[in-house]
Formats: sequence, structure tokens, C-alpha cells
Amino acid sequence: MSILLSVTGFDPQRWYEALKAADPSHTIVLQPGRADDPSIDYAVVWKQPPGILSALPNLKAIFSLGAGVDHILADRSLPDVPIARIVADDLTARMSEYVVWRVLDHFRRGRAYRQQQAQRIWHERMQPAAREVTVGIMGFGALGQDAAEKLRTLGFQVAGWSRSGRTAPGVATYSGSDGLSPFLAASDILVVLLPLTAETRGIIDADLLSKLKRQTPLGGPVLINAGRGALQDEVAILDALDRDILMEASLDVFTVEPLPAASPLWAHPKVFVTPHAAAVSDPEQLAPLVMQQIAAHQRGEPLKHLVDRASGY
Amino acid sequence: MSILLSVTGFDPQRWYEALKAADPSHTIVLQPGRADDPSIDYAVVWKQPPGILSALPNLKAIFSLGAGVDHILADRSLPDVPIARIVADDLTARMSEYVVWRVLDHFRRGRAYRQQQAQRIWHERMQPAAREVTVGIMGFGALGQDAAEKLRTLGFQVAGWSRSGRTAPGVATYSGSDGLSPFLAASDILVVLLPLTAETRGIIDADLLSKLKRQTPLGGPVLINAGRGALQDEVAILDALDRDILMEASLDVFTVEPLPAASPLWAHPKVFVTPHAAAVSDPEQLAPLVMQQIAAHQRGEPLKHLVDRASGY
Repeated sequence: MSILLSVTGFDPQRWYEALKAADPSHTIVLQPGRADDPSIDYAVVWKQPPGILSALPNLKAIFSLGAGVDHILADRSLPDVPIARIVADDLTARMSEYVVWRVLDHFRRGRAYRQQQAQRIWHERMQPAAREVTVGIMGFGALGQDAAEKLRTLGFQVAGWSRSGRTAPGVATYSGSDGLSPFLAASDILVVLLPLTAETRGIIDADLLSKLKRQTPLGGPVLINAGRGALQDEVAILDALDRDILMEASLDVFTVEPLPAASPLWAHPKVFVTPHAAAVSDPEQLAPLVMQQIAAHQRGEPLKHLVDRASGY
Repeated sequence: MSILLSVTGFDPQRWYEALKAADPSHTIVLQPGRADDPSIDYAVVWKQPPGILSALPNLKAIFSLGAGVDHILADRSLPDVPIARIVADDLTARMSEYVVWRVLDHFRRGRAYRQQQAQRIWHERMQPAAREVTVGIMGFGALGQDAAEKLRTLGFQVAGWSRSGRTAPGVATYSGSDGLSPFLAASDILVVLLPLTAETRGIIDADLLSKLKRQTPLGGPVLINAGRGALQDEVAILDALDRDILMEASLDVFTVEPLPAASPLWAHPKVFVTPHAAAVSDPEQLAPLVMQQIAAHQRGEPLKHLVDRASGY
């Protein structure tokens, strides 16, 4: 029995060592011996090369090294075995840090104060209370619910939108396409944590942005996307910023990554760019969870955090 | 019976209206009729002109419109009546927002990412987990304890230092001058919320900064001061930043306010300046609490949040 580790974009060596440290009893290989290598039972992947998994005759399950699985499902020749995502406290905590950080920076007028500092201007900005501001979270799974709880601790009103209608205490929740417009109309700060699926691709478009609340306590709505770049229409975001339909945006993900140097997002004064760094998968934290899933599967126990291929996440 | 409202720096009219709205039955005056005006029973003040309270024969109590009372005690001719500070959820929440915002911005490398964005550089920075970072809070009263709780929710380790040895669940607490060095040696990010007293004046000096942890998960220690400007030696802070004893600083308060245009703090790349805006007193939220205190005092009940003049807060 061996485990295939196929990683693009992350450092494979760090993952190799972390998986080994988590359970030294397994053989881990970075390439199949041949296309139909019969020794491989499990695959642990991040953006695996398309086709690499299709001919493995004994593959029993695929594990994603992050919360998203669109990078796995992009492979059209994927074999019909269970796929499990990672749900890890460490990953969730990092994403919530990013969300709270960006919400607070927009809410507490970080951009305005940085501009004032550059001009040596001492001027106090009007500051609403957190309870006057609604943060709307699109995508209300493990990540969205944790961010919601932390924002509520800081006093914000929170709304949540999901495909399937997930609820959480103290959060106004909306679901499905019928729920989208009222959800957007209630949101002063929109946080996008959606998975990338056929349904969500390009969902942050001109139409969606036009449905955000116009008059907000901050002067205009704010967009924060830490989901996937392909969720967003970047031309529509830039247009909304320039037409004051959006006040500011924090973007961690982009349709093309790394964000090309020619993108106008880099230099836009209302946009804050981070390099897909909102919630980085830490091998030391996540590898043990993968190895525990594999051990459980070998004991005949069901896998946790399984992906529904039909819905795409 | 009338209430003297003496406000410098805030808008007296907004406070006048908020106090009136909170309890329309009282007469509120913006000036004593004469120096020994016998009609004034209570004074509600922010930076009152020195001497204005000393000759009022029937003054029964003084109320501060903020958490700090150094602005009241600066008046050497203060009559011997009880002084009460404001402890309000709204004020506490705003201060914790500022603290969490600044901690996250330093922790999540806001400055580095803003610099990278300006240069169109896509580069992920090493990011420790919150549990690897200790935020040390100097001044562990109502404000410090609330900030501690919110930082703990985000996963940070928290240490607290106070004169009197206040404790809180899950927080490593230190007290007095003996406890200061070990507290500083444990702190990766130092948050100062101290009151300004004879003991704390100038406490953030070269000696204190030199005792902060040198090797931190972020690369160096961070200073956040939202207490009072007179707590800090600004020359020592600039020197510590330039010598890499401090990595970065967020300062909301300054020895001279407004911060003079000539101050090198404005343009220092490692300093984030806000115009004493961390926790603004909101008349609509705070006036009812003052009027409730006055009503309770009139019923013969004890005042809450009394100031100890000997310790200066």
C-alpha cells in the first residue's frame, strides 16, 4: 500500500515530510511508478496533473490539501472514488483571521487614515458602531460559519447565504437564487467564501454588485473575496469601484494567478491585493488529519468531509 | 438642581442634546452662572478649564465623558468630591475593535502586502498561526480584559499586566514593577491601554522597549498605543524602530495632539498613525449612562466606576 502525493504550487517536500512525520508506517510516492501503478491506494493532491489518477486500478480515495476541491474536479478523467476535503481548525482560523482583518480595515477606515497619514492630516473620520453594520457572508459552510461567529463577537450584524440553506444562531440566513437579492440588499460588507462550481463561476458580476445595499453606514458597500478568483468578474468589480457602486474591495484571489503585472487591480486605490494568502495550508497542521482519514478508511470507517461531485464541492 | 456640562475638544452641543434626551427633567448649563454658582450639583466634563469646579459650593460629583480621567485630575484645584469614569459597552467595543484591527494588520503583514501591491509583487509571506503569537496587554481593566477576550477568540495567546494584579481566564497575568520585565519578555505584540498617572507617565521608554521579546514569530516586536500619548517617549520609539528593536508601531495617541506636522512619526514607514480615534465617545450611547448615575446618586445609591485619586485612575 502506498500513498501518492501530487502537489503543484505548494512545496511537495514539506508535505512529504509532514505526512511521513504524521504516520511513518506508510510509503509515500511523488509519482506513480507507471500510469496503472497497482500499489497506490490513496492520493493526496493539490492541483494534480490531469489524468494522473485515472488509470490507478486500486485507488480508493482522493484527499485535497485545502478546503477547495475545484482544482481536483477540473480533471475530467477523474476516477470514481470518494474525494475528501480538508476541514482543519488551523485552516479555518486563518481564513477567519483574514476575514476579520479585512472587515475591520474597511470598517475602521484604514485606507482613509493611511491617505491622511501620508498627507500629515489629523482628522477624525465618522465611525459607525459595529452593531450598525451587516457583514454578509456568501458561502456558509465551516469557514463562513466560523467567520460569522468571530464577527458577531466583535459586535457586527451577520447575514449568511448558502445554496443549501445552512443556518447559525444569531445570523440572518438566506438561501438559493430566491434568497440572493434580499441577502445582498442587507449586506454592507460582502464576504465571499464560496466554492467554485458550475453554479458559482462568475457569480460576482455587475448584476450581483448592483444589488448590494447602496446607502451603508460606511458610505458604500465593500467586497471581500477570499473564495476563488473564477467567482469574480474583475472588469465588473473595477467598473463598480469607479462608479461608486462599490466603496472598496479586498481581493485575495484572481481569475489569473499570479495576478498579471498588467492588471489594473494592482494600482487601483480602492483595492487591497493579497497573493492568495488568506488561509495557507500548513503541512504540519494538516498532514496528521489526512493520515487520520486514511487510517480510519483502512479500518473500514467512513470518510469525513466528503465532496458531492454533483454540486461540485 | 442643575448639571454643568464643560467639554473641550468634543462638540458641547451634541452632548447637551444627548444629555437632555436621556433625561429632560434636569437643567443643563454650559457655564456656571458665577464662580460659586450654588445651583450646580453635578459636573459632566471633558478637559474642563482648570479652576472652573473649585468654587462650586454644592458640587456633589464629577463625571468624565471618557474612560480616562487624567484630563480631570490635571486640574490642581479640583474640589474633594467623587469622580466617576464612563464604563460603557459602546466605548469598550470600539477600543477592542481598534486593538483587534491593529493586531491583525501587523500580524497578517498588512504593511508588507501594501508595499508589495505598490510594486505589483505576488509573493506570499511566511505567516505564523495566531496560537504562536502572544499579545501582551498593558493596563488590564475593563478595556484590556475585553480586548483580551476578543483576541483569545481569534486564537492569540494573551498576557496582561496591571498595577494591581487583575486576572482573567486563559490569560497569563503579571503585576507591579516586578512583573513588568517577564511580561515584556513574553510579549510579541505589546498593546498599551494604561491610564495616565504619575506612575505611568513616560513608561514606554527605551528601557521598556529594550525588554520586549527580540525573536518573535513575526520577526520582531510590535507596539500599539491606544492609551495616552504622555505614556510614550516618541524619540525612544523612533530610535527602537530604526534600530530594529521594534518591528512596527500603531499609535493612536501622541505627546502633543494634534500630532504636529513636523513630527517624524507621520512619514515613518513602520508607523501607522490615527488621530486619537481608537474609541470615540458617542454622546447618544454614553449620555444615558451619565444620567443614570446622577439619578442613582440622587436616590442615595453609591456611584459606580469611581476614580481612586491616589492611584490617579
